[in-house]
Amino acid sequence: MFIEQKTILNLQPIKQCVRVTFNYDVHFTRGLFELNNPLLAQVIAADQQTTAKQVVTVIDGGLLQYQSKLLEKLSVYAQHYENIFTLSGEPIIVPGGETVKNDSRFIEQIHQRINICGLCRHSYVLAIGGGAVLDMAGYAATTAHRGIRLLRVPTTVLAQNDSGVGVKNGINAFGKKNFLGTFMPPYAVLNDFDFLTTLDERDWRSGIAEAVKVALIKDGDFFDFIMNYADKLGKRDMEIMEQLIYRCSQLHLEHIAGSGDPFEMGSSRPLDFGHWAAHKLEYLTNYSLRHGEAVAIGIALDSTYSYLAGLLLQSEWQRILGTLNKLGFTLYVSALTEQLDQPDHPHCLFRGLTEFREHLGGELTITLLQGIGQGIEVHQVDLSLYRKAILMLRDWE
Amino acid sequence: MFIEQKTILNLQPIKQCVRVTFNYDVHFTRGLFELNNPLLAQVIAADQQTTAKQVVTVIDGGLLQYQSKLLEKLSVYAQHYENIFTLSGEPIIVPGGETVKNDSRFIEQIHQRINICGLCRHSYVLAIGGGAVLDMAGYAATTAHRGIRLLRVPTTVLAQNDSGVGVKNGINAFGKKNFLGTFMPPYAVLNDFDFLTTLDERDWRSGIAEAVKVALIKDGDFFDFIMNYADKLGKRDMEIMEQLIYRCSQLHLEHIAGSGDPFEMGSSRPLDFGHWAAHKLEYLTNYSLRHGEAVAIGIALDSTYSYLAGLLLQSEWQRILGTLNKLGFTLYVSALTEQLDQPDHPHCLFRGLTEFREHLGGELTITLLQGIGQGIEVHQVDLSLYRKAILMLRDWE
Repeated sequence: MFIEQKTILNLQPIKQCVRVTFNYDVHFTRGLFELNNPLLAQVIAADQQTTAKQVVTVIDGGLLQYQSKLLEKLSVYAQHYENIFTLSGEPIIVPGGETVKNDSRFIEQIHQRINICGLCRHSYVLAIGGGAVLDMAGYAATTAHRGIRLLRVPTTVLAQNDSGVGVKNGINAFGKKNFLGTFMPPYAVLNDFDFLTTLDERDWRSGIAEAVKVALIKDGDFFDFIMNYADKLGKRDMEIMEQLIYRCSQLHLEHIAGSGDPFEMGSSRPLDFGHWAAHKLEYLTNYSLRHGEAVAIGIALDSTYSYLAGLLLQSEWQRILGTLNKLGFTLYVSALTEQLDQPDHPHCLFRGLTEFREHLGGELTITLLQGIGQGIEVHQVDLSLYRKAILMLRDWE
Repeated sequence: MFIEQKTILNLQPIKQCVRVTFNYDVHFTRGLFELNNPLLAQVIAADQQTTAKQVVTVIDGGLLQYQSKLLEKLSVYAQHYENIFTLSGEPIIVPGGETVKNDSRFIEQIHQRINICGLCRHSYVLAIGGGAVLDMAGYAATTAHRGIRLLRVPTTVLAQNDSGVGVKNGINAFGKKNFLGTFMPPYAVLNDFDFLTTLDERDWRSGIAEAVKVALIKDGDFFDFIMNYADKLGKRDMEIMEQLIYRCSQLHLEHIAGSGDPFEMGSSRPLDFGHWAAHKLEYLTNYSLRHGEAVAIGIALDSTYSYLAGLLLQSEWQRILGTLNKLGFTLYVSALTEQLDQPDHPHCLFRGLTEFREHLGGELTITLLQGIGQGIEVHQVDLSLYRKAILMLRDWE
């Protein structure tokens, strides 16, 4: 593809280099909205403005079933700290889970509120909920006035240790996960462990999958910790869960800061281990699988494939599947085998490879394992080996 | 506002620092779509991918009146360089000017095309047109897959020397200019001077206002250049215009790279001299004023205010108004005096101060002049002095 060099004008191109630095803190607390916990007010007051800041609140409706006093607490908290911030209208209550990412009207609702209340760019959107609600509210916040400050209060294990601490916001469109979105860090993240005590069993378990994922590609010791405490995690031991969340978010944050490409302009994104299949499985099961449950299957699949490809020892592969199993994850769903001979069929799992590449850009890049704690990127896969891996998952027990 | 320090948990906050570097070149050329001009193909081929890249094209319909062969040229160019890129469907032709920023359906149209053609994040949106079309297409591109590569081909003076080289994208909503948008640099900017030869007189002149603006706050020599060549610029001297555009975009790019806050997370944005009034005047005149025409009035107003406030010498003030006049700008419109005694009235110019602060965030920050080439930021203004300045503009000749 040789192109002749030619200078049309004697005006040299101007080479522009824009460097942007984003600082944000990820806090860990309990009882975020108790009056004797000043953390939220401190975070808002930190920029030392003299007037009370405006805060639009977006709350995951799923949460209110279990946290029936949340709205009242929030209102009392705001009154107590009225010198520091005021709530701009009643909290916007939205459905939890992927529903909220599949309908752009929730974005419009937040934009409308920001407009009506006359919020400025230094105001806040306070988003309280699971990963999907935070993703959606983040997209709304980061596009209003080209970016209003986003305070994330993740309320699930998955949001606290993974999606809620990162730099991505987005919603689904055209049946494609996260088709619309922004890379934009939050202003701060406030992880309140108390929210975890009322999670249902599936949401408690689901987020552990992201910890398994990051442990497998980055930190063998952390995987051992999860494996050794799998029983306790199953029994909802809070102390173990807090340690898991802290270490997992630390690994995520280190990766984002240290990757050299936090906004994923290149092709590398090793934190997506197991995710090409997970994203597709969520779609194929009509989002009846939680994201973390789909990730667990994706991890099992890509670990099995790594084993079959000769990258992983049989004993390592067995420890991975054994741990996922002990944690209570199901490692096979029938959607894995639909249309398996037609890789381009919209209902075939393998179509997820194309969609993953398309979303990411450039050539296909899949993370596999060459040991527990050691990810490796590959750019080609053998579908027949994947078919074998799927059958092994089906028969595994 | 003292807040008691309290540590709820022994888990320390994780302090995250994300650094992102964006590099992009601003090119200057003629005959961008001539087969013997390889620039566009070179820019696309620069990432050394082996497969032809997909390109969705968005074209300012206003352009086609004057550039009747543009579509054909583009198609022939793409065929010639088919190893490097392919056009993903027919170009999307959109209205030029603020119309395109006032209707979100154009954004949806681009997103739909990106979806249907299966573009990946490393594909391109090639936007050809005036500033409004580039702003809109940029917002669409930077939100699809969290950011598809944006190639800007600015075709007006204003877009080539100002909006098209910067890091902002956006559309209007709720009657507020740029209410929705992103800060995200383009992948590259391709300034083709040939497009300027067919501009109508208003568009030719309009963009010069942004050069006057940046000269007044940053570079006295550049202001002298504009003043001395005002006649030639009026007579459409291309060589002078090329120099003006090059220097103006250079000053803009230096400011963005050197400001320390390219995504405007703080309060400082001295490049917006004259803009609080300009944005409001555009709205008040129902966008019958071009952006640059409104900026010229905004510059005249804030220069007059600077003079009345004792910051600027009378001779400097006269040189500024004289130059704007010589360039052919009208410095007074009746919208300046509507509802002038009711600063909060939606049709009062002064309401623009509130809206400017709201969009920017934090306290009000207005740039004034303390000399030609020397901007200064103030945080309070005297409305009675502004009323006087408006009357002086009305009577000025």
